[in-house]
Amino acid sequence: VKVRGVEIGGPDCVIMAGPCAVESREQIFAAARAVKEAGARLLRGGAFKPRTSPYSFQGLQNEGLELLKEVGEQVGIATVTEVIDPHDVGEVAAHADMLQIGARNMQNFPLLIEAGRSGHPVLLKRGPSASLDEFLLAAEYILDQGNPQVVLCERGVHPLDRAYTRNTTDLNAVPVLKEISHLPVIVDPSHGTGHARYVPAIARAAVAAGADGLIVEVHPCPREALSDGQQSLTPAQFADLMISLERVAAAVDRRIARQS
Amino acid sequence: VKVRGVEIGGPDCVIMAGPCAVESREQIFAAARAVKEAGARLLRGGAFKPRTSPYSFQGLQNEGLELLKEVGEQVGIATVTEVIDPHDVGEVAAHADMLQIGARNMQNFPLLIEAGRSGHPVLLKRGPSASLDEFLLAAEYILDQGNPQVVLCERGVHPLDRAYTRNTTDLNAVPVLKEISHLPVIVDPSHGTGHARYVPAIARAAVAAGADGLIVEVHPCPREALSDGQQSLTPAQFADLMISLERVAAAVDRRIARQS
Amino acid sequence: VKVRGVEIGGPDCVIMAGPCAVESREQIFAAARAVKEAGARLLRGGAFKPRTSPYSFQGLQNEGLELLKEVGEQVGIATVTEVIDPHDVGEVAAHADMLQIGARNMQNFPLLIEAGRSGHPVLLKRGPSASLDEFLLAAEYILDQGNPQVVLCERGVHPLDRAYTRNTTDLNAVPVLKEISHLPVIVDPSHGTGHARYVPAIARAAVAAGADGLIVEVHPCPREALSDGQQSLTPAQFADLMISLERVAAAVDRRIARQS
Amino acid sequence: VKVRGVEIGGPDCVIMAGPCAVESREQIFAAARAVKEAGARLLRGGAFKPRTSPYSFQGLQNEGLELLKEVGEQVGIATVTEVIDPHDVGEVAAHADMLQIGARNMQNFPLLIEAGRSGHPVLLKRGPSASLDEFLLAAEYILDQGNPQVVLCERGVHPLDRAYTRNTTDLNAVPVLKEISHLPVIVDPSHGTGHARYVPAIARAAVAAGADGLIVEVHPCPREALSDGQQSLTPAQFADLMISLERVAAAVDRRIARQS
Repeated sequence: VKVRGVEIGGPDCVIMAGPCAVESREQIFAAARAVKEAGARLLRGGAFKPRTSPYSFQGLQNEGLELLKEVGEQVGIATVTEVIDPHDVGEVAAHADMLQIGARNMQNFPLLIEAGRSGHPVLLKRGPSASLDEFLLAAEYILDQGNPQVVLCERGVHPLDRAYTRNTTDLNAVPVLKEISHLPVIVDPSHGTGHARYVPAIARAAVAAGADGLIVEVHPCPREALSDGQQSLTPAQFADLMISLERVAAAVDRRIARQS
Repeated sequence: VKVRGVEIGGPDCVIMAGPCAVESREQIFAAARAVKEAGARLLRGGAFKPRTSPYSFQGLQNEGLELLKEVGEQVGIATVTEVIDPHDVGEVAAHADMLQIGARNMQNFPLLIEAGRSGHPVLLKRGPSASLDEFLLAAEYILDQGNPQVVLCERGVHPLDRAYTRNTTDLNAVPVLKEISHLPVIVDPSHGTGHARYVPAIARAAVAAGADGLIVEVHPCPREALSDGQQSLTPAQFADLMISLERVAAAVDRRIARQS
Repeated sequence: VKVRGVEIGGPDCVIMAGPCAVESREQIFAAARAVKEAGARLLRGGAFKPRTSPYSFQGLQNEGLELLKEVGEQVGIATVTEVIDPHDVGEVAAHADMLQIGARNMQNFPLLIEAGRSGHPVLLKRGPSASLDEFLLAAEYILDQGNPQVVLCERGVHPLDRAYTRNTTDLNAVPVLKEISHLPVIVDPSHGTGHARYVPAIARAAVAAGADGLIVEVHPCPREALSDGQQSLTPAQFADLMISLERVAAAVDRRIARQS
Repeated sequence: VKVRGVEIGGPDCVIMAGPCAVESREQIFAAARAVKEAGARLLRGGAFKPRTSPYSFQGLQNEGLELLKEVGEQVGIATVTEVIDPHDVGEVAAHADMLQIGARNMQNFPLLIEAGRSGHPVLLKRGPSASLDEFLLAAEYILDQGNPQVVLCERGVHPLDRAYTRNTTDLNAVPVLKEISHLPVIVDPSHGTGHARYVPAIARAAVAAGADGLIVEVHPCPREALSDGQQSLTPAQFADLMISLERVAAAVDRRIARQS
């Protein structure tokens, strides 16, 4: 899978990072510069935010898409953002380099089909109680439309309890998916744990387990984030994490992909 | 909630029944006549079928909607059918008396919002790993659009293993939801168990637990069904079940709603 | 299975009731008289209490056993109590009419073997994440010692979340176990829900689903209970429940077993 | 925690390895020599095997204990073995350097208390549906007897399905337990995955996540193993794994503990 020149699923691990949601021009530019400098190759940032409650912040929507396109071009970093309505796929694909389909929409079949038809690279997240077979069959809806550009993302499954973590990161899924599928597999340690202080350990573990990349929430100021602040790293924490990830990647004969 | 004159959530239990999918004119008319005669007040039947695999039967789509409208009018029974794309809501509402939002789409927020805007009655199924709070917040997306016509449906949660049943019917949800919400609560024992031979026991249990209704899969010939045949009752089994449900309903001071 | 003349697994449903733990002579006598008068055929009451924390009340132990024997004889009701150490099996069997093996000990194999060797009737509770095959193989450890007197008890499986209930009562297990095993199957709606106000609905549902009996927590004064007070019915609530259970049992062609 | 001179929970990661069960003198000596040579500091091997079915191999029992003691002395490696009956604790402690309490017995409170009283080092495995609070309270039963020598072991939680793995290794538990408890935390990638081919990836991930050690199943000839052969590494696979673990440990500023 190639996203604006970045190869995912090749020898190098690709790190995607950025805020949960695009909140303002200032915020997304600060985030983009910070994560690029630390070595991330894709910027994440949601414009359309699927939220459990209708009364939570739902994202900047079209304004967020515009900001994402602008920041991607000016800072020089590929972008990935979520799409939640099949009829928005074209618009989102025109503004971002990769489409994300979130865990809640893993079996939103009209959305998968439209993402498939778009031919755009797709990051497909595993649903919180989806088996690996259900996950791969969801990917098949995209592939079946003639779009081979699919990256699988393990983001945590339904936990035994939520006293300490929001989900249970299922790292078993990494070697299993690498064996039973040819698609690249990345891990989201931010949703997988739900707390910034556990993200570095699980990020390192994911790379050691053989993941082809990570998607990590990083916010210029997590305490002021409009969503998911609790699980977002600061730019400084992320930069530290990148250094340790390089060491772990080297220990399993891989590298963290860097800007050329 | 009133669906073409049928009150759901009142003193009587409302039984919805019919095939998983509309498969042909002959099949849906046979099913409609059988379930109406046995006492069902709504006919279920899918035109748009969300299927785990893209290679499974996906429903007759628009042709299915037409058949459903025709059978509802000619046989004289209200209809409920699933909608999976937010942009189909208007079309589906024009052909069926009640919109169903399936378990996989419980957090498909654009779909919930469109269903809310339609003002049409909505049957909202609980996702297989959704907490009751997540379920009620999903209903809130519909209510928040000014549509109070929402019926909640427990259809089984992710099971410990699938050796004997497809899901674990969570009947605890019935008294809890009746306590924490004012919305009617029905149960789907067909998906809740996944096997026709366990459906009667769980249907009776649901009524005894206080459910306001049931939605049951009935097919004129389950062995030939294009989907979910294993969990569909025959018309004769359904007629027997209805008789026993009347007795259980009476034991908890309710009645099974009958045609007036 | 016959426990002091009470047949479990025959045409009638057998109700077992009583406090979580034997707390005092006064308490257990009051409970015994109340549940017998309301129609229960066995008195439950723990002497050895397995508690999650070592700092919680652990039961009156041998003193509790003595009280249980005394109350059973004087009030004239059969008794069931938990055993947690294989080397206590003989002592417990000498003081109670039926041995209970709790959910935490479902795979405590030395305990199962000793319970099997005792020849005493055994109430075996399903573990919170045990599959039905694991449950039946645990029963097999008892049967394999030549003791056919085993009653299976569904007491709730690990829940999706604990916001409203302590466990998820798996009533699917009732028709499945009745089909794949010849052993009697009862349900514990007290642990299955964890809250007294949901117990009646689930108790009725269990009988409607075909359970051969129930085990229900009843305490003379739930607010003062040393354990599980939140899920215990008062004697008055239990008496009301028994009346409604008779109606539900009749609706499925059974009766609630009464004193002869 | 110190086991025959081996420090667990210090700066170095301690690897425990060996067969699921002691099967014969030849087998356990071959295993002991192989794992010691590859760098393991403790030999695992079960004498008392808790098995789901009563008809499966139950271990060599006392003969197994004797062999374990002999091999530990002659080969010069500390040993860990499971105890399942509280009344065997003394005997097992006399033959092995560390007591293991298995996942099924995590809440076998008489066993925990006896293990506590013994003062012997204890390896406590997390139950498959135990929350971390329940796990720590189980450890508290041992600590409360005045025995501080407890090592916690994450061995996989109940999986969403068993199509590809036997359990879901919960590596989130590693950083969480390290934060909320002072006890050493190790991981069992063999039970965590259930398949030898996934063990190396998860073993590396566990070390990267900060585990203080691993317990790995290694059998001289996995295909002939009387239990758990599917998840056992060969001695050659284990030796390769040890080499890669050293690299991963170094990447997180730790070492794999070696014989001094």
